[in-house]
Amino acid sequence: MSFEPGLTDGPTSDEVVAADLAHVFHSWSAQGSLAPIAIRGGEGSRVWDHDGNRYLDFSSQLVNVTIGYQHPRVVEAVREQAERLVTIGPAAANETRAEAARLIASHAPEGFEKVFFTNGGADANENAIRMARLYTGRDKIISRYRSYHGNTGAAIVATGDWRRIPNEYARGHVHTFGPYLYRSEFWADSPEQETERALHHLRRVVQAEGPESVAAILLESIPGTAGVLVPPPGYLRGVREIADEYGIVLILDEVMAGFARAGRWFAFEDHDVTPDLITFAKGVNSGYVPVGGVIISDPIAHHFDDRVFPGGLTYSGHPLAAASIVASIRAFEDEGIVEHARMIGDEHIGPALRALAERHDVIGEVRGVGVFWALELVADRTTRAPLPAADVARIKSGLVAAGLLPFVADNRIHVVPPAVVTAAEVAEGVGIIDDVLSRV
Amino acid sequence: MSFEPGLTDGPTSDEVVAADLAHVFHSWSAQGSLAPIAIRGGEGSRVWDHDGNRYLDFSSQLVNVTIGYQHPRVVEAVREQAERLVTIGPAAANETRAEAARLIASHAPEGFEKVFFTNGGADANENAIRMARLYTGRDKIISRYRSYHGNTGAAIVATGDWRRIPNEYARGHVHTFGPYLYRSEFWADSPEQETERALHHLRRVVQAEGPESVAAILLESIPGTAGVLVPPPGYLRGVREIADEYGIVLILDEVMAGFARAGRWFAFEDHDVTPDLITFAKGVNSGYVPVGGVIISDPIAHHFDDRVFPGGLTYSGHPLAAASIVASIRAFEDEGIVEHARMIGDEHIGPALRALAERHDVIGEVRGVGVFWALELVADRTTRAPLPAADVARIKSGLVAAGLLPFVADNRIHVVPPAVVTAAEVAEGVGIIDDVLSRV
Repeated sequence: MSFEPGLTDGPTSDEVVAADLAHVFHSWSAQGSLAPIAIRGGEGSRVWDHDGNRYLDFSSQLVNVTIGYQHPRVVEAVREQAERLVTIGPAAANETRAEAARLIASHAPEGFEKVFFTNGGADANENAIRMARLYTGRDKIISRYRSYHGNTGAAIVATGDWRRIPNEYARGHVHTFGPYLYRSEFWADSPEQETERALHHLRRVVQAEGPESVAAILLESIPGTAGVLVPPPGYLRGVREIADEYGIVLILDEVMAGFARAGRWFAFEDHDVTPDLITFAKGVNSGYVPVGGVIISDPIAHHFDDRVFPGGLTYSGHPLAAASIVASIRAFEDEGIVEHARMIGDEHIGPALRALAERHDVIGEVRGVGVFWALELVADRTTRAPLPAADVARIKSGLVAAGLLPFVADNRIHVVPPAVVTAAEVAEGVGIIDDVLSRV
Repeated sequence: MSFEPGLTDGPTSDEVVAADLAHVFHSWSAQGSLAPIAIRGGEGSRVWDHDGNRYLDFSSQLVNVTIGYQHPRVVEAVREQAERLVTIGPAAANETRAEAARLIASHAPEGFEKVFFTNGGADANENAIRMARLYTGRDKIISRYRSYHGNTGAAIVATGDWRRIPNEYARGHVHTFGPYLYRSEFWADSPEQETERALHHLRRVVQAEGPESVAAILLESIPGTAGVLVPPPGYLRGVREIADEYGIVLILDEVMAGFARAGRWFAFEDHDVTPDLITFAKGVNSGYVPVGGVIISDPIAHHFDDRVFPGGLTYSGHPLAAASIVASIRAFEDEGIVEHARMIGDEHIGPALRALAERHDVIGEVRGVGVFWALELVADRTTRAPLPAADVARIKSGLVAAGLLPFVADNRIHVVPPAVVTAAEVAEGVGIIDDVLSRV
């Protein structure tokens, strides 16, 4: 960590942490063992605490600060909208909201004209599930074991990982395995075979559940927290064919993967597929204001022309969120941020991580695209046994101590910096990982 | 409607409505029959459209703009936080978030120190339900038929009204009837009898469900959209006794009723009861930025000191929302907004609505407190038959045409202006209702 004395007026980090621990109940944590960093400010891909310590952010917080910290155009749009009209309900028409919806739809495939806004990614998936059920008149939602779809009622039960298990209070959910060649569930030894077998497995689950009971297949285009599992060629196209064959709605969850993270406006663009519903949040405005939503294909949107859609939220289409979306999408367009994310992944992050893997046996696999990468850490390259949690924790602590904020999940380091990360910052961050892996 | 030419530069209302209808998918609506008002700006209790038409808002949008439109102190706080640090993830400690949690806890009863932030009221109830289930090790949630708790998985199934029915995908929910003397489910003819019989009914449901299976009783302190059903004396205290007797968590949903709406910081303060969990949203920051949360009593908070709480959201404790909460609570304190809401209800809204009922037989009952009132419209005062929907719709249209934004639910007009509404505005708004009821 570098130290900048000029940033240290006001309370110390210890004081802010004490104030936080006194009254803030934290997510996904035991409250008695928290050690949060007191972030005071940020710019681009860097943040700093109240003591002047600076960190390079390879996490984008929860993989959401895609445009980087304090992008001036987006901050200015929030300020301007706050002064014009900070809030208005969803029943009203609002100029900024309409423009946000238009801009989002303009980057979706042809045939997607309507956007339903929510407060975040979880309720985006909730509402996509609701639309699919009402459109098909069917109940079941098929999703993957290796997935994360959010933390409200249906979204958390659609989720595949351990976080589902204490929360299984929604019905109508079925889970399947997806393609993941490094740890294949299908005894496959090539991407082609993994695709073919994963599709066979999905088709068999659909048939065995009864296709006439299946409303939707819900997939992250690239499963994110589950491991940045870029699908092998042909997989998503094959899922689309199964959905079409059985009249099933295909929901692609682009909450994490969309809006530049995968170096495309939507990650599915690389996979020759068009879904029926697209869910988004995070990158759409980098979380500058809480928001998410569903982009709705025309047949499903028109289904509700003369039927009441039984869903809504007080803050749906919030004007402050809408303003941040408008400014963020325009900045993406004008500054080439999506293209930059693609380039930095192809030319810098990917090559640097693969070179790292050559130097460290603990890296079992490198995978990703754009600013969306994972290093799979293993105790043994042959058995692929995951690196034990205690070792992963030591690596994580080492990275933070060295001034790098990592995103760590299970036995993986996800390399998910803001999309505006520079080549020099990539080199710096990968250098820190290199040092820490050498030491730990 | 008054007309102000100075407010008419930029697009017309028709243009904004057309832009909205092209791309925005609306809540709780058939998309083919929408006629939204294009709101351009607002101040205090008034808003205006793009053609310069002004409206007095007796709805507070979705009963959330409690502090009124564009409160300068809250707008300034949003601007200031946007420029300082517009977003940071929930794992970090953040000065503004800590202060928002501290201020909220300072207005809760003794023994409530921790706040879990969410994106709105629905996921506040989701997380309160989750906490109750994990704390008790039990499954069932008892709520009321006349209630609204939000629109995500468990919250919408806890809801009592028709909106639950197309969304019944969560398990573990049981519904009961609550007190509502005007349409008693218990053949009662006095408030005392309604309380006694409603408590008997609740106790019988708990016993018949099996107390050892009941995690929580979830109630709006004052059911809001269900009809502003202020509980009769002794009811909530009696619910508390039943909960205590059977080891059940009492969750009071203060999403609509809390933070000045009922002329108190929390509506339950008038009812001699302390819950175990309090959910909030709306009035806490008037929806200036999407936010909600759960205020957690110490025993439940400490339950998670050494156990992971399996819940969280990317935007939990968003700094922009936190800044608006801090400014809003301080404005409430400094400007006496809670006390004003109480006074304006006791001295102006209540008396004016009761006088209105004397002039119009269509008003079957007036009930409420603070800035939280309902007029129950009936076809016949003796049978209490609800006024038919077509008549209610004509009254609603008449009110809007006369420049008053009403909150209409079923056969009721809810009088729910911002808490900063003045005596003159109350007289003006009630005068419009008087005129429209005379004409329609």
